[in-house]
Amino acid sequence: MDFSFDPATQELLAQARAFVDDRVLPAEPQLDAELAATPDRWDVRPVVRRLQHQARAEGLWNLFLPGEAGAGLSNVSYAPIAEATGWSPRLAPAAFNCAAPDTGNMEVLAEFGTPAQQERWLAPLLRADIRSAFCMTEPDVASSDATNIGTRIRRDGDHYVITGRKWWSTGAMNPDAAIFIVMGKTDPDAARHRRQSMILVPRDTPGVRVVRPLTVFGYDDRDHGGHAEIAFDDVRVPAANLIAGEGDGFAIAQARLGPGRIHHCMRALGTGERALALMTERARTRTAFGGPLADQGVVREWAAEARVQLEALRLLVLKTAWLMDTVGNRRAMTEIQAIKVAVPRAVLQIVDRAIQLHGGAGVSGDTPLAELYAGVRSLRIADGPDEVHLSSLGRSQLRAGATP
Amino acid sequence: MDFSFDPATQELLAQARAFVDDRVLPAEPQLDAELAATPDRWDVRPVVRRLQHQARAEGLWNLFLPGEAGAGLSNVSYAPIAEATGWSPRLAPAAFNCAAPDTGNMEVLAEFGTPAQQERWLAPLLRADIRSAFCMTEPDVASSDATNIGTRIRRDGDHYVITGRKWWSTGAMNPDAAIFIVMGKTDPDAARHRRQSMILVPRDTPGVRVVRPLTVFGYDDRDHGGHAEIAFDDVRVPAANLIAGEGDGFAIAQARLGPGRIHHCMRALGTGERALALMTERARTRTAFGGPLADQGVVREWAAEARVQLEALRLLVLKTAWLMDTVGNRRAMTEIQAIKVAVPRAVLQIVDRAIQLHGGAGVSGDTPLAELYAGVRSLRIADGPDEVHLSSLGRSQLRAGATP
Amino acid sequence: MDFSFDPATQELLAQARAFVDDRVLPAEPQLDAELAATPDRWDVRPVVRRLQHQARAEGLWNLFLPGEAGAGLSNVSYAPIAEATGWSPRLAPAAFNCAAPDTGNMEVLAEFGTPAQQERWLAPLLRADIRSAFCMTEPDVASSDATNIGTRIRRDGDHYVITGRKWWSTGAMNPDAAIFIVMGKTDPDAARHRRQSMILVPRDTPGVRVVRPLTVFGYDDRDHGGHAEIAFDDVRVPAANLIAGEGDGFAIAQARLGPGRIHHCMRALGTGERALALMTERARTRTAFGGPLADQGVVREWAAEARVQLEALRLLVLKTAWLMDTVGNRRAMTEIQAIKVAVPRAVLQIVDRAIQLHGGAGVSGDTPLAELYAGVRSLRIADGPDEVHLSSLGRSQLRAGATP
Amino acid sequence: MDFSFDPATQELLAQARAFVDDRVLPAEPQLDAELAATPDRWDVRPVVRRLQHQARAEGLWNLFLPGEAGAGLSNVSYAPIAEATGWSPRLAPAAFNCAAPDTGNMEVLAEFGTPAQQERWLAPLLRADIRSAFCMTEPDVASSDATNIGTRIRRDGDHYVITGRKWWSTGAMNPDAAIFIVMGKTDPDAARHRRQSMILVPRDTPGVRVVRPLTVFGYDDRDHGGHAEIAFDDVRVPAANLIAGEGDGFAIAQARLGPGRIHHCMRALGTGERALALMTERARTRTAFGGPLADQGVVREWAAEARVQLEALRLLVLKTAWLMDTVGNRRAMTEIQAIKVAVPRAVLQIVDRAIQLHGGAGVSGDTPLAELYAGVRSLRIADGPDEVHLSSLGRSQLRAGATP
Repeated sequence: MDFSFDPATQELLAQARAFVDDRVLPAEPQLDAELAATPDRWDVRPVVRRLQHQARAEGLWNLFLPGEAGAGLSNVSYAPIAEATGWSPRLAPAAFNCAAPDTGNMEVLAEFGTPAQQERWLAPLLRADIRSAFCMTEPDVASSDATNIGTRIRRDGDHYVITGRKWWSTGAMNPDAAIFIVMGKTDPDAARHRRQSMILVPRDTPGVRVVRPLTVFGYDDRDHGGHAEIAFDDVRVPAANLIAGEGDGFAIAQARLGPGRIHHCMRALGTGERALALMTERARTRTAFGGPLADQGVVREWAAEARVQLEALRLLVLKTAWLMDTVGNRRAMTEIQAIKVAVPRAVLQIVDRAIQLHGGAGVSGDTPLAELYAGVRSLRIADGPDEVHLSSLGRSQLRAGATP
Repeated sequence: MDFSFDPATQELLAQARAFVDDRVLPAEPQLDAELAATPDRWDVRPVVRRLQHQARAEGLWNLFLPGEAGAGLSNVSYAPIAEATGWSPRLAPAAFNCAAPDTGNMEVLAEFGTPAQQERWLAPLLRADIRSAFCMTEPDVASSDATNIGTRIRRDGDHYVITGRKWWSTGAMNPDAAIFIVMGKTDPDAARHRRQSMILVPRDTPGVRVVRPLTVFGYDDRDHGGHAEIAFDDVRVPAANLIAGEGDGFAIAQARLGPGRIHHCMRALGTGERALALMTERARTRTAFGGPLADQGVVREWAAEARVQLEALRLLVLKTAWLMDTVGNRRAMTEIQAIKVAVPRAVLQIVDRAIQLHGGAGVSGDTPLAELYAGVRSLRIADGPDEVHLSSLGRSQLRAGATP
Repeated sequence: MDFSFDPATQELLAQARAFVDDRVLPAEPQLDAELAATPDRWDVRPVVRRLQHQARAEGLWNLFLPGEAGAGLSNVSYAPIAEATGWSPRLAPAAFNCAAPDTGNMEVLAEFGTPAQQERWLAPLLRADIRSAFCMTEPDVASSDATNIGTRIRRDGDHYVITGRKWWSTGAMNPDAAIFIVMGKTDPDAARHRRQSMILVPRDTPGVRVVRPLTVFGYDDRDHGGHAEIAFDDVRVPAANLIAGEGDGFAIAQARLGPGRIHHCMRALGTGERALALMTERARTRTAFGGPLADQGVVREWAAEARVQLEALRLLVLKTAWLMDTVGNRRAMTEIQAIKVAVPRAVLQIVDRAIQLHGGAGVSGDTPLAELYAGVRSLRIADGPDEVHLSSLGRSQLRAGATP
Repeated sequence: MDFSFDPATQELLAQARAFVDDRVLPAEPQLDAELAATPDRWDVRPVVRRLQHQARAEGLWNLFLPGEAGAGLSNVSYAPIAEATGWSPRLAPAAFNCAAPDTGNMEVLAEFGTPAQQERWLAPLLRADIRSAFCMTEPDVASSDATNIGTRIRRDGDHYVITGRKWWSTGAMNPDAAIFIVMGKTDPDAARHRRQSMILVPRDTPGVRVVRPLTVFGYDDRDHGGHAEIAFDDVRVPAANLIAGEGDGFAIAQARLGPGRIHHCMRALGTGERALALMTERARTRTAFGGPLADQGVVREWAAEARVQLEALRLLVLKTAWLMDTVGNRRAMTEIQAIKVAVPRAVLQIVDRAIQLHGGAGVSGDTPLAELYAGVRSLRIADGPDEVHLSSLGRSQLRAGATP
């Protein structure tokens, strides 16, 4: 048993942390200024382009992607780097070209795409020349149960025709999001998990209509392309746009969700660390009732509990990553579900307490806390709500035998 | 002991509830539409004007205000009506002219104002011809400790000169907010609670500068005039604008805060009821994994716990109101602190669970839940953070002797 | 609406409180001494006899029982008196002849018993000449679902023959517990809630065998007759021992459980108050790290939260009592379920924190806290576990429509 | 980073688990029977002797002790074995001669004892020929603050004379506990952490009086020698009985407490696993309301949350052990405090829910759950209450700087 990172990871991590600390965090006010100056634009802002340029030059690029197409890191090695980007979810993941949903989409293309699909869409995504969206969730059904999906993908000669309505297509408000991966049913009569397929739909295909942006606790998340509701009305794409085969949609979704979920957890830990750092800073510098807040017993308990939670959950995330590296994503499913539920819960409490310690500044835009809260809060819903994962975990647990 | 409302209260309550149900809730989409159509305006929107007209015609007007100037209701009688308005915090309180901070400001003027001050400012407020703001909290200090307040109010002949910076001046972004009540120090060397005074500052006085709006999570709260940061630079007003005497500021603030806090709690209970109603509706109609969500044991527990919490805390609010009616606001201070802490905590959990049950719709603008959450969340900070009240309550408790 | 007790209740309450404070609490060490001196006896100890004599002389007797047979108090009037007895659950309820399960058994006999049954068993119970037990729960089935009950009561000519096994028959280890009320099935084929009947079984009937005592967290509860497992092997009693008619068992149980549950809650509030009083005393007198524990912020929060919880839940208990008094036990069922769940939960947290503040003394027999914890903990299981009540409450809530 | 145990550890662990499963758990009823048959004896019962004999023969002996005197395991390797013993805290630790307080006392003697002290006391302890006690906590002061300790150890020629009163001397009711390690003040005027010394006091020294046993909830813990209050009245022992030098007491205590705390946490994890196993078994086999409890959503959530908590905290315990192995106990102090607080909290919730699922059986002696609860509950107090550790952790956290 060994809880230390290998030297190469330590080195890369130090570099990534320094980048976040020296370049990303100081750039946050600039992002705010650029967004305020262009309230009606959804595309990537200049400050992000600049950071991407710098990060790529430093080799901090596509670190999420295993194999030759990406940086080739293990999940364990990527974990602390992803965590560092979680300190600034609005800037750092994009700066490193490690931002959802592009990461998951690139994984899908790298793993399941044809060479032609990879050349056409993966290559520009790896260069951050374009962005992408993942169109799975639907407004009318409980999408955590994939068999509910209503969007239809019908074969028509050399084409497929897509009809349906999606929402929470993150990034799709950004006009640079040139390609959408759409999940729909090709065969409603097939076996339960063989009904769905995934298909590539270029944004400019006739029949694609970006209906409106959605908000998360009042935030439109313009900094990462927002969240769109999209209508697909008889959208016709070449049959070659299908990813893998008909009926493979569910399996691809599962393959995509495992890494997606752990990446969210890694970043959320970083968000929790930042909230704790802000709490610490505030506690030291703010005075009330005769002394700094750091002297209050209740504040100390908050800090202590935050530290304990973050330490324990980081280890669980790392062990999950290690299982993915050593026995495969599929056999790490239980652990992925565990962190998917436990990490956002804990981080939300930490952010909430950091807000409380900041008073009015905490709920406002004067600290990043309220927006961080909103982002982590949505993780309890995205990719399956907590309750679905807990129920599944509980069922497994109650089936398992147990001895000392 | 009698837990029933008297017949007059029941009748008025039935009327108020019907108004909220029949007129206010259906008008919410119209408010959204009007706000979307006028994104840069902060004043009262036409739909509010229309509802105010109707409510006033029905006698549902100024119900918060005891005595002759208002409707003359007891706190106990006002409580369930205020709760009904909490179902739609954006519209209903304003429709009844019972919205903070005007309510507190009207109370101050009714109780402490001179006839001239009342004629000039209270009268138009009671008619909703103008709005007002209360300028107490400051960005640079922990305002829960009133002795920290930095704004200075200096006598200069027949005038007072005000210098300082305030924020979280709710409603002040609305240009109709014609009058600000400003808290500041007149005598920094006086006894701890005799240093502060309150003074009336018309919005258009030279030196008053509304600096910027603040957001609560991502909401600017334009529907009730937003929250402003305001700079007062050598603002000169007639000495007659002082409310009561020099050094009375702390006492007036205390007098104002008691009713203000209980009103917030009353409305928050209504917000909790609405969240529970939305949860119920969703649980009945949304299907997942083979049945309605209402069949899930976890969802039932949420509904049950919400009901129990709301019932218990409503009684504590009502008892507090009854104490204010029978022994006075001052002797109800402990109970006011208790509900100030307990009600928002409980309601936040209910709203959060309602959000969770709604999935993506819950965090978005498609349900009122996320915005309700933000509003109630700020109550844990406004008028003194929970921790200050808990510490004060705990100190009292640990001083008291106890026998069976 | 009126939150005050009427003068008669206030007077009786003052008397009851004084009795508990002056006579009962100081007698606790004597009870310990008597129990230690007679480790193998389960009957009522002399100190209890003495207190009963005094209480009866003062008129503090059978206060739980409405109507002519008892003191004729309303539930609202009895509530604060029962709470006072909850300060010393081992002594005070017995001293006032208001201890479970005798209270419920007396209610059953008073409401459903024949004159002969009342004369034979109710009269000596009202004088505390004998004690009684209630035999409902069974070891082999989930007794919260009454249809599971396995004990059979078969008619055989002029007799009934009872066969089955019961446990958690509180008080039955006491040889003075002369009469058992036994719940069993008379007609397994009847409608679901018409299968059960209740029957009086004198302790000395052949075939009745008290198998063993049960413990609650290590406590044998000898002070109130312990908790017995009892076997009934072909126990033959006269047909006249049936309470009400065949098939009435479920209805009688429901009638008995409502008051039983609220009495438990009333007393539990008193237990919570005592724990808070002990916490307060400890916080004032114990010094650590340079000052009394009462100066610690965390301790203050505990005291504050305890106070808030107790105030809110007391009101919910009182409102429930008021509903029972005004609209009947049946229509107060929802509220009874609510307090059944909410009160023990809250009181357990308070007692647990009081334990924590006392350190080693808290878990030991040097304070009453650990034993109080064990007693209240069992309330979360007795008369239906929390989860059954929450599920039932939640189902009702999710069925109800809701408007402001 | 590597989350797997090395092969030697895996092998030993498999052996230890099999021993607990095959020999220890089935022996629990025998222990109950032996205790019931000898209610007034506190010494080690025959079943323990038998298990010790078997375990020693198998080499499962003194595994806690690093270095030559013991089995030489690292903390990481010992951790899962200690966890396995936590399934049966009454039997397994003693069976392996790994039970507190003997473990800590053996560590002290091995690390700080003179050869003579080791020969006289360590050797028979390593053979389990005698037992021992650790006399540190005092009834009259908050012993978590070591400077409070009141016991005096005065030099008098070739002897030391000890006067004071201790309690919670675990194991000391057992007459086989032949040696007590006593902490007291040798120089009240020395620097804060140089005032205390530790000294060996044979049980049969004149002036030593075991006053009484203490209970934990209602348990006397006879199976591991109970918890004694002990008076030391002018107890005279040779000066050679001092452990290390005068003033070294605090340092020895710190050295002893680190391993002691982590051992408690390791075992508590096993206790949590056993509670979860019992919960699982019950949920599968108990039927209510038409199906097994395992089909209830709430029960599934309990099982899921238990699993997540245990996984995360086990990793934190293992990392702490790894730090102790690699950088030393002193630099693992923060982590030791973290697990000291977090593990018992989580395990208590799991045991409590297992109790709830078992209904009446859960609080009684028919399952081990209530006694397990009592044991883990006392861990929140022993070796410093949670609040002291949280405050210390929080202070450290609020001092530390933080960057991504």
